[in-house]
Amino acid sequence: MTGIETTIDRLAALFGERVSRSQDVRRSHGDDLSYLPAMLPDAVFFARSTEDVARALAICNDDGVPVVPFGVGTSIEGQIHAPRGGVSIDLSGLDAVLAVHAEDFDAVVQPGVTREKLNAHLRDTGLTFPVDPGADASIGGMASTRASGTNAVRYGTMRENVLALEVVLPDGEVIRTGTRARKSSTGYDLTRVFVGAEGTLGIITEVTVRLHPIPAAISSAVCTFPTLAAAVDTVIATMQSAIPVARIEFLDEVAIEAANNYSHLALEVAPTLFLEFHGTPAGVAEQAAQVEEIAAEFGGRHFRFATDPEERNRLWRARYDSNPATRALRPGSATFATDACVPISRLTENILAARADADASFLRAKINGHVGDGNFHVSYLVMPGAADEIREAERLAARVVERALASGGTASGEHGVGLGKLRFLEAEHGPALGLMRSLKAAFDPRGIMNPGKLGSHPT
Amino acid sequence: MTGIETTIDRLAALFGERVSRSQDVRRSHGDDLSYLPAMLPDAVFFARSTEDVARALAICNDDGVPVVPFGVGTSIEGQIHAPRGGVSIDLSGLDAVLAVHAEDFDAVVQPGVTREKLNAHLRDTGLTFPVDPGADASIGGMASTRASGTNAVRYGTMRENVLALEVVLPDGEVIRTGTRARKSSTGYDLTRVFVGAEGTLGIITEVTVRLHPIPAAISSAVCTFPTLAAAVDTVIATMQSAIPVARIEFLDEVAIEAANNYSHLALEVAPTLFLEFHGTPAGVAEQAAQVEEIAAEFGGRHFRFATDPEERNRLWRARYDSNPATRALRPGSATFATDACVPISRLTENILAARADADASFLRAKINGHVGDGNFHVSYLVMPGAADEIREAERLAARVVERALASGGTASGEHGVGLGKLRFLEAEHGPALGLMRSLKAAFDPRGIMNPGKLGSHPT
Repeated sequence: MTGIETTIDRLAALFGERVSRSQDVRRSHGDDLSYLPAMLPDAVFFARSTEDVARALAICNDDGVPVVPFGVGTSIEGQIHAPRGGVSIDLSGLDAVLAVHAEDFDAVVQPGVTREKLNAHLRDTGLTFPVDPGADASIGGMASTRASGTNAVRYGTMRENVLALEVVLPDGEVIRTGTRARKSSTGYDLTRVFVGAEGTLGIITEVTVRLHPIPAAISSAVCTFPTLAAAVDTVIATMQSAIPVARIEFLDEVAIEAANNYSHLALEVAPTLFLEFHGTPAGVAEQAAQVEEIAAEFGGRHFRFATDPEERNRLWRARYDSNPATRALRPGSATFATDACVPISRLTENILAARADADASFLRAKINGHVGDGNFHVSYLVMPGAADEIREAERLAARVVERALASGGTASGEHGVGLGKLRFLEAEHGPALGLMRSLKAAFDPRGIMNPGKLGSHPT
Repeated sequence: MTGIETTIDRLAALFGERVSRSQDVRRSHGDDLSYLPAMLPDAVFFARSTEDVARALAICNDDGVPVVPFGVGTSIEGQIHAPRGGVSIDLSGLDAVLAVHAEDFDAVVQPGVTREKLNAHLRDTGLTFPVDPGADASIGGMASTRASGTNAVRYGTMRENVLALEVVLPDGEVIRTGTRARKSSTGYDLTRVFVGAEGTLGIITEVTVRLHPIPAAISSAVCTFPTLAAAVDTVIATMQSAIPVARIEFLDEVAIEAANNYSHLALEVAPTLFLEFHGTPAGVAEQAAQVEEIAAEFGGRHFRFATDPEERNRLWRARYDSNPATRALRPGSATFATDACVPISRLTENILAARADADASFLRAKINGHVGDGNFHVSYLVMPGAADEIREAERLAARVVERALASGGTASGEHGVGLGKLRFLEAEHGPALGLMRSLKAAFDPRGIMNPGKLGSHPT
């Protein structure tokens, strides 16, 4: 019996059938939405409480056994893969909304609550949790990967929307970071240390998130541009005009063409912005009119605007269906998704270079972006298991990252590091990477938390 | 010759007259705007570059000599006091605005640049750096204390407005944290670790801050309420209505009475809100009208509204002059200032209890607050050097903090820990304080950075 088997036996003795060695269960916990091959844990433990997590961590820490926290498995850079085996701790059973404080604009949730579940729970409060990475991710996972999404330009990312945490440290100690006060200046910002740590420092067992009022009115707009530069310049001018746009999404020509085919639309195949405005009825109309005027200065055309929900959905249809529409360009294909984030003044050149690279490759790709943040995504269409295609996508994606870093940007705006972007950490952070490793060693001295990823020494 | 003298000689050999042992210089660097008695460093080094800071830190680290970073000395909890002596490193000479990227809404500054200097520099860009703690603090100091102020409810605190840092670690190594990209998910958020660390982990030598567009229109309003609860309920309802108020300041009856006397006003002596709206001309008028309606529901009266700058200044006069006006209630007195921050639903009870405590005391006090954040300030009027009065203020301030903590809040919303609030860290953070000490030990193994404060073990 190996060391790990002893540990699993100790866990099974405590938790019974909630500890699984089944191949199916292990497989579903060693694979996410990324292109990476599955890497299975040796066992999966389905936790139901903070106390469960604390007891399991104390055992694994004693035995020096790797622990991989698992939410609902929607990460896309291998954050929940288990390259060194060990125990996956499934937190989806910690799924209670513990409190909603409507007057204080916050909610306290367990980490397995998904964002859609939280928003369903908030239905009658007039409040919403706006961070939206696309997938119905768990709030704990979103905190751990510092997730964001389409409306981060207005409402911020998980960095801004997590107020407080309960965390189990690797040795099983339970701590609380932050409070429900909206700001504080009393000590190191441990909350922000765990947000984005990708489960390498401890396990989040409770999250206090900020809520936002649902605006009285929402309007949507779509506008087509002669060039990408014109679209980006429109966004910059819009933000310089202090127009508080809630979403500004970009789709490139490939994405528009795919949407026309998939959703039976007749959009002009050109760089296109999808906008959303939040405010009062008069306010959203005024914002849209201002943006229409700015867009016209940069050659924008076919500006369409809607406030009726059904009409708004129609306007944004191409954006909503963009992922399946793109995959439909190549039946049977999967998406190799990468993202990067740059200062917005460098966005045009970065996207154009990514486009040129893709056009020169045998792989098709579409580009979209949360353009108000300078965050863009390149999705390469690869056949599952086609090693040469994945290699080519990796080559192209690496060039996306290298250019972003050379532009003063970051290797990922919202997908995170996982296993997929580990190799870029040195180039992005330089000597600060040493300090990250010191931090990791201080928080997780035995190195059991999600090893082989963020904070680990290269092997 | 003691150890510290040897270190100062080493520094003087390198930096000549920029190392001072003068009593006057030491005194001006061992005292801030707090009630605390001065605690002098043994010497002051006037740095002019990152390289200066790195060389000085390497020497002090070698010798195990305490280092206290100093900006412009406007802190109010003893952050720049030198309880263990050592070398104060004055960063006011690092005062260059290194770059303004108007399209990217950011600026790169040295830490000694003050916020007013930065805003003067930005004059022709249409952009502003909005974080405003009152004093003309240095940007480095503001980052280090996680400063905020009146418009944090709209624009955030230094936590949200620092994008990237250059930091010299205790051993002299220079690192960069973050990038100019507006968001990132690639690694531990070291930027947020140094923001609010109060110079206990390293010295910030460069700060990249977010800028915001100056709104097309600004309007101001003032409204009087029958009770504090009515004022706070108006704020909650305003925020629930998604009205993006830029500032919501509260003054209590004592503050209003003081303002009437000092500024020759005739305001009704009652809880009063001072509001500011940013947006388009139509937008700010609409926001004000909405708030007027909400305020009326809660018994608000004397609602006045202005867009003309001179008229706006007149409306806000009582708020602007509040600190000198309050001191004028007791000629010769100084302000013993404390702050706390609570979930807004608990604000009324906390302020009323602080008021009752003050009314039962022999000290006068006024209360004001950045009420949208749940952050409030109590200013006790004490005679400089009157030990019994300072003891009484400390007793009252401790009760403010204890109630805030019992309400799920924090011991300070924006003043920070310094020496004044060290004793509350255990009560606020519990076991997380141990993790903060581990973090401190990992970043500053020899314990030279601002010792005796945040992150130190109790002595």
